[in-house]
Amino acid sequence: MGNGLTSNSFDWRTKGIPAGGAPITAGELAARQWRVTREDLMLPVALLRKSALLHNSDWMRRFTALTGVRLAPHGKTTMSPELFAMQMADGAWGMTAATPGHVRIYREFGLQRILLANQLVGRQAIAYVAGELARDAGFDFYCLVDSVRGVEILEAGLSRTPAGRPLQVLIELGYAGGRSGLRDDAEALQLARRIAASPLLSLRGIEAFEGIVQSRDEAETLVGGLLHRIRALGEAVLAEGLFEGRPILSAGGSSFFDLVAGDLSAPAFDVVLRSGCYLVHDSHFYRDLVERLIRRSPAAASLGEGLRPALEIWAHVLSRPEPTRLLAGLGKRDTSDDVRPPTPLGWCRPELGETVQPLHGHKVVRLDDQHAYLDIPADSPLQAGDMISFGISHPCTTFDKWRTIFIVDDDLTVIDAITTCF
Amino acid sequence: MGNGLTSNSFDWRTKGIPAGGAPITAGELAARQWRVTREDLMLPVALLRKSALLHNSDWMRRFTALTGVRLAPHGKTTMSPELFAMQMADGAWGMTAATPGHVRIYREFGLQRILLANQLVGRQAIAYVAGELARDAGFDFYCLVDSVRGVEILEAGLSRTPAGRPLQVLIELGYAGGRSGLRDDAEALQLARRIAASPLLSLRGIEAFEGIVQSRDEAETLVGGLLHRIRALGEAVLAEGLFEGRPILSAGGSSFFDLVAGDLSAPAFDVVLRSGCYLVHDSHFYRDLVERLIRRSPAAASLGEGLRPALEIWAHVLSRPEPTRLLAGLGKRDTSDDVRPPTPLGWCRPELGETVQPLHGHKVVRLDDQHAYLDIPADSPLQAGDMISFGISHPCTTFDKWRTIFIVDDDLTVIDAITTCF
Repeated sequence: MGNGLTSNSFDWRTKGIPAGGAPITAGELAARQWRVTREDLMLPVALLRKSALLHNSDWMRRFTALTGVRLAPHGKTTMSPELFAMQMADGAWGMTAATPGHVRIYREFGLQRILLANQLVGRQAIAYVAGELARDAGFDFYCLVDSVRGVEILEAGLSRTPAGRPLQVLIELGYAGGRSGLRDDAEALQLARRIAASPLLSLRGIEAFEGIVQSRDEAETLVGGLLHRIRALGEAVLAEGLFEGRPILSAGGSSFFDLVAGDLSAPAFDVVLRSGCYLVHDSHFYRDLVERLIRRSPAAASLGEGLRPALEIWAHVLSRPEPTRLLAGLGKRDTSDDVRPPTPLGWCRPELGETVQPLHGHKVVRLDDQHAYLDIPADSPLQAGDMISFGISHPCTTFDKWRTIFIVDDDLTVIDAITTCF
Repeated sequence: MGNGLTSNSFDWRTKGIPAGGAPITAGELAARQWRVTREDLMLPVALLRKSALLHNSDWMRRFTALTGVRLAPHGKTTMSPELFAMQMADGAWGMTAATPGHVRIYREFGLQRILLANQLVGRQAIAYVAGELARDAGFDFYCLVDSVRGVEILEAGLSRTPAGRPLQVLIELGYAGGRSGLRDDAEALQLARRIAASPLLSLRGIEAFEGIVQSRDEAETLVGGLLHRIRALGEAVLAEGLFEGRPILSAGGSSFFDLVAGDLSAPAFDVVLRSGCYLVHDSHFYRDLVERLIRRSPAAASLGEGLRPALEIWAHVLSRPEPTRLLAGLGKRDTSDDVRPPTPLGWCRPELGETVQPLHGHKVVRLDDQHAYLDIPADSPLQAGDMISFGISHPCTTFDKWRTIFIVDDDLTVIDAITTCF
C-alpha cells in the first residue's frame, strides 16, 4: 500500500520489526512471510486485516451509493496516506480534516478536496490555506464558521494573505452543552447574511457534528433534532439566495450516518457524510453503535454483513503474579483506553503450535503506560510468554499510537504495511 | 540538542512548523527567532523550557549525589535521544527501558547500560538482546525475573540464541493487587537459588516498582513495606552468596525516590533509582507528588527550589459557542488525559501584544481527539483566535503525542528542538 510520499522503509524505529531489524521496504514484506503466531514479530504489534479493510471500504461505498450521499471520511482517524488512497479509490468525495496541520499533511498526501471541520483561526493556519488556494486552482477547500468573530478572523487573515478567490465556508450549528456551533438558528441566519456580504468568503453550506451524543439513550432524538435544524437553516438560507453554488448539508460521525443520510437528503442539496471510523471499525464501542445503526437503518441492513473489526494488537503475557492477575505487554502507548479498554480475543503459545484459541472471562481492568492488567479466571491456561490478541475500542486513539501498522492476510501473515502521520 | 542518529530535519510532518513549512534542521531554528506569542508557529505546539530542563536535570544530579544513589532514569517518559544524552551527561548510571523495542531504540541511541524493567519474554526479544550481548562486550544489560517460568523462558531463549555470557537479572518483588513481581518472599528466595544455579543467568539484584500506589493515602506506609522487603530479601540472598558481583537494590517511580534512596541504602548494595518524570515534571499531578516528597525529605528540601514544569502546550481558542463554554484546539492527540486534564495557565491575543496574562477559573472539562472543552467564567475575555498555554499532568502520556518538541528560552522563543521515538 505504498504511495510516492512515504519512503515506507521500516527499521528499529518500527514497533514489531523482528530481532535483526535491518531496514525493509513495504514491498519486501510479503516475501518474508512473517507470521505473528510463529513469533516472527517483536511484540507488541498492531495488525490490520486486509480482508476487513476491503470489506468495510466496499460496505461504505455501497451504503453511500444506495443512499445517494457523498463521503468525506474523517481522516484524523488514521492519518494514513495508504488508507486515504484506498478511501479515495473507493469513491470518497474528499477528506475531512481536524486541524490546519492535518490540512497541510493531506495536501502533501496529494488530496485536492478537504473539509476542515473547525473554524480556521491563527495567522499561520490562514496563511497556509490562503497560500495553497492561491497556488493551486484545483484545491477545493472548505472550513466552518460559527460566529461573527470567526468571519472577522478570516477576513483579517485573507486581507493579510490573499487567497485569490473566496474562501468556501459552511455555517456550523451546535446544541447547548455540546461542542462548537451556533446554538441559535436566528443568529445563524444573520451570520449567513454576513458571510454572503463578504467578498472574501463564499457560503457553501450548513453543517453540524452530532457525534458526541453517541452514548446517550435519547441519542436518536437529539440527532434528529439537530439534523432537522441543519435542513431548516439550509432551506432558509437557500430561500434568501445566500449560498454560492449548489449547497452542501453535512454531518456525520461514525454512529449516526444513517440518520444523516436519511434526514438531510433533499433535491436542492448535496449531503456530505464525514464518518471516519467505519474503515477500521473496532471490537466493542463502534461495534455496538454500528449494530444499533444497522437495526435502525433498512438501507444499512440491506447491505448484508456489517462492518468488521480490522485492527488487532498482539502482546506477550509478561507475568502472572497471582492466579487471577495477569500482566500483558501493551499499555496506553499501544491502544486506546479513552472509551473502553482493549478486549482479549484469543491466545496462543508458540511451543504448542499456531492455533489461536478463543479467550473467555479475561478482562483488562487497568492500563499503565506499557502494561495491561488483566483479571483472569483462576483456571486460565495463560502464563508468561504466551501471546494474546486484543481487539480495540476506538480506532482514532489506537492509530495514533503507531507509526507503522502491518497488513495481514486471514492467516495473520504480514503482506504489507501502512504508515501514519500524527 | 542534536545527535548523530536523528537527522533533526523538520517539515510538514512536524506539528507547529509555520505556514511555509520548508524543511529546517534543529541547528537552524534559533536564527529564525520563532516566538509562539507572535503567532510564528502553527498551533497546537508543544514547548519545552530549556531553563526548566537544565534546572531539573541538575536538581536530580544533586539529589543523587547527596543521597549516594545511582540513577537509571526511565527513558519511556520521553523516548528522546537528545534528552537521554542530557541525562547521561548529568551523570546517569544507565537508562531504564519498558519494552524490548525500547531496548533496541536505546541501543541505536548509543546507550551501553540498560535496565529492562520487565521480564524478558518472546523469541524475537530474547534473540535481539542475546545478539547484542554477543556482539558488544561493553553492553551492560539487566532485566527482571519474577517466576520460575520467567527463568525457563530465558534459558530456552538463550539456548537457542547464545549470548556468550550470563544474562544479568534482578528478582522482582510485588504486592497483592499490584503489578508484576513475587508476592511471597520465601518463594523469591527459592527463585534466587534457582537463578544462581543457572549457568545462563547471573543474579545481580532485587527490585520492585512502587510507583502505582502513588495516589493512595497510605502510600508511604505501603512503599516503606515494599522497600523493607527488597532490602530483607537482598540481605538473605547475599547471606547465601547467591549474587554475582556487587548487588543492586532498585526501585523508583517519580513520586517516592526519596524513600527509595533512604530505605535501600546500605554498605553492601548499590541503589539504583529509576525515576523518569523528574526531567520534564508537570503542572499538576507530579507537582503535587513532588511537593509532598520535598516536605517529607530533608535531603530534597536542602536542594532549594524543587522541580519546575518544563512542558507547555499552546492552542488556539476555536470557538466560544456559549458564554461559559469554550473550545480550544488541543485534544487527546496533543496532551495527556489519563491522570488529569491539562491546566490552562495563561493567554494572549496577538493583536493586543505579546504579554501572557494569567488565567483563573478556566477549566478543561472534556477532551475529544482534537478538541478541549473548557468551562469558563461568563466574564472571561477569551474569544476565538486567542491563544492559551496549557500545563500538563503526566509527561509520559503527553510526550508520546509529539514527534518533535521545540525548546524555548524564557521569552518563549524557539532555540532548538528535541525528537521522540515512540
